[in-house]
Amino acid sequence: RVNGDRLWETLMDMAKVGPGIAGGNNRQTLTDADGEGRHLFQTWCKAAGLTMGVDKMGTMFATRPGTDPDALPVYVGSHLDTQPTGGKYDGVLGVLAGLEVIRTMNDLGIKTKHPIVVTNWANEEGARFAPAMLASGVFAGMHSLDYAYGRKDPEGKTYGEELKRIGWLGEEEVGARKMHAYFEYHIEQGPILEAEQKQIGVVTHCQGLWWLEFTLTGKEAHTGSTPMAMRVNAGLALSRIIEMVQGVAMEEQPGAVAGVGQVFFSPNSRNVLPGKVVFTVDLRTPSQEKLDRMRAKIEAEAANICAPLGVGCSVEAVGHFDPVTFDPVLVERVRGAAEKLGYSHMDIISGAGHDACWAARVAPSTMIFCPCVGGLSHNEAEEISKEWAAAGCDVLFHAVVETAEI
Amino acid sequence: RVNGDRLWETLMDMAKVGPGIAGGNNRQTLTDADGEGRHLFQTWCKAAGLTMGVDKMGTMFATRPGTDPDALPVYVGSHLDTQPTGGKYDGVLGVLAGLEVIRTMNDLGIKTKHPIVVTNWANEEGARFAPAMLASGVFAGMHSLDYAYGRKDPEGKTYGEELKRIGWLGEEEVGARKMHAYFEYHIEQGPILEAEQKQIGVVTHCQGLWWLEFTLTGKEAHTGSTPMAMRVNAGLALSRIIEMVQGVAMEEQPGAVAGVGQVFFSPNSRNVLPGKVVFTVDLRTPSQEKLDRMRAKIEAEAANICAPLGVGCSVEAVGHFDPVTFDPVLVERVRGAAEKLGYSHMDIISGAGHDACWAARVAPSTMIFCPCVGGLSHNEAEEISKEWAAAGCDVLFHAVVETAEI
Ligand SMILES: NC(=O)NCCC(=O)O
Ligand SMILES: NC(=O)NCCC(=O)O
Repeated sequence: RVNGDRLWETLMDMAKVGPGIAGGNNRQTLTDADGEGRHLFQTWCKAAGLTMGVDKMGTMFATRPGTDPDALPVYVGSHLDTQPTGGKYDGVLGVLAGLEVIRTMNDLGIKTKHPIVVTNWANEEGARFAPAMLASGVFAGMHSLDYAYGRKDPEGKTYGEELKRIGWLGEEEVGARKMHAYFEYHIEQGPILEAEQKQIGVVTHCQGLWWLEFTLTGKEAHTGSTPMAMRVNAGLALSRIIEMVQGVAMEEQPGAVAGVGQVFFSPNSRNVLPGKVVFTVDLRTPSQEKLDRMRAKIEAEAANICAPLGVGCSVEAVGHFDPVTFDPVLVERVRGAAEKLGYSHMDIISGAGHDACWAARVAPSTMIFCPCVGGLSHNEAEEISKEWAAAGCDVLFHAVVETAEI
Repeated sequence: RVNGDRLWETLMDMAKVGPGIAGGNNRQTLTDADGEGRHLFQTWCKAAGLTMGVDKMGTMFATRPGTDPDALPVYVGSHLDTQPTGGKYDGVLGVLAGLEVIRTMNDLGIKTKHPIVVTNWANEEGARFAPAMLASGVFAGMHSLDYAYGRKDPEGKTYGEELKRIGWLGEEEVGARKMHAYFEYHIEQGPILEAEQKQIGVVTHCQGLWWLEFTLTGKEAHTGSTPMAMRVNAGLALSRIIEMVQGVAMEEQPGAVAGVGQVFFSPNSRNVLPGKVVFTVDLRTPSQEKLDRMRAKIEAEAANICAPLGVGCSVEAVGHFDPVTFDPVLVERVRGAAEKLGYSHMDIISGAGHDACWAARVAPSTMIFCPCVGGLSHNEAEEISKEWAAAGCDVLFHAVVETAEI
């Protein structure tokens, strides 16, 4: 078994970096706080005897050598970046549990045939730079490096500039590494495990996603002196589209979600009807068929809503992945470890996207989920227990060591 | 007749200060650009022989003396501040037409019994600091100076701090001046005069207004892993309230408007359901009865929309004025001047709020409207013609000189 107290202390130490305003964290990608978090992680890796490599996307790879020079490494990791009002565990748990696996192996003097690499993927959240899972996406060949470098935050700063600025532009070609297997331990970010009173989620699939960014063009006009009949009101179109998106998700129940998280009114003045409204739709489902249908419906109905209002409507897909099926051998290995350790467990589909979804395209991959209180995530109040964290880390330890072969 | 070319050149010179991004202006209240515009206006006033006074709200009063030391001044003015994406004429026309009236009087060597004071009211727009018409509101005793100083912009900077910072905190007590009469010349900001092909709007009334600021409280949660049934979605509540506000205005047709100009999502991240949505409703009508009914309906129905969604709803009134009836003697004087000069004219109700609405509470007041192309205002593309500008200025000249008595 791993050292649950040590894992917890390490989590709490990382949570001090980039504190939020309500007990959580604001350690967004490529901010100064992200740089600070990376340095802390690097210090811990060094102390554990690991060698750090950094690629051109800023992803960190901390290696514990294996005994066979020809054996590909087993990767284990997640991400240290957070939402603007993020929790202490989303991503962080997976990286620091990877470190705890190494520390436990060091304690026990375990040697493995395959090297083990603890990974901190850059820009998983996608909050500052869309899309999410950007570095793992480039790693898996889904995006070009140029595309990634050109992604802009809301202030117009690019990923490439900011990566250089915080000093974490590495030299390794992105995706040059080959993986024997990839494991990611993460909080569920949903309510199922807690409701079912299970300690371990054995993640078999991940739902697919579309992120659509809409730009609605109305006519900026005075709210007082513009008669109702003369308005070209982009905000009214937005309101109907939010309701429609909700309706499309409800029609596809169960097993589908959709919602609007981001809205920008322009000029955003009390006495001006918005001339422009930019907003994003996030839609997901584990079914490929539903995924395509929902996207098509939302785009078509948005156009139908805008036309009679005279509002212009354009849409750009800023994020996408198809539903993922994880590697059955690794899934079974996780299930077996939970069983052997006596932890209650259930199979589960990931509601959120993860770096494992891209890794799955280039290597056998799987995930382990930890319950979280009230299903709350992307919220500073995100919470898990020390015992939950340790249980999943135990399972991770057994699955990783078994895969890396003693 | 006034010098229309000179008026137009003066307008174009002011438009160079705080240029917008699309041919208009961004000279928001108490920004550096506002300071620069004030200096330019001061220079022109000095050249025209006027004496400048500034009050504790930053309102500028440029006086041309009268021949009778006991006669109260005739005030004529409007505002030089603009919307973030504002036009070149909204407010500016009224201030610079006041200056043109003085210049023409100087040219003709006209002396009047009553002094004439050209006025630049501070913070008319209310875009940066709500409510609109703040300085004239303090002048008329509607708000305390402390209330005004404490008003905050979206970054949290206060009116009091910013007024000091740009160096326009004057020494005069606000409202200490007594007025013989107040005239304000302004663009219509609506489509009526152009549609009716009238050169002059004789403004008889101004519709009343409520600005309501709503705060909706939902539950920040992951857009992917939070099932539809578990969502407490403040954005969905917003969408229903925008539609409802539209409906309330439509029920009260004709003679009522309502809309939402400003929306802030929080944390405003693509993959987070908003935990908080703050937005403003602007509702107006010339009928006191409708004004009260619309406000009550909107507040009650917003609460009804939020309750079943589990979304918290609080509302604060951040701006208000009752419908205004302008002084019948001054209105008749404007109508008579238009008639005498041979300009086409019609009576009209102001859709927008103006400093004249507050001035009307402490002095006989009225307004003159200039048509504007397509009824467009609060838009950088706001446009008028040189001939329109000059026609209204002619009417202003005659009405002011008649009131100030040669
Ligand atoms: N796990 C997680 O929240 N990742 C960010 C991408 C997503 O929204 O699913
Ligand atoms: N005239 C004008 O746009 N004033 C600002 C206050 C309002 O919205 O009516």
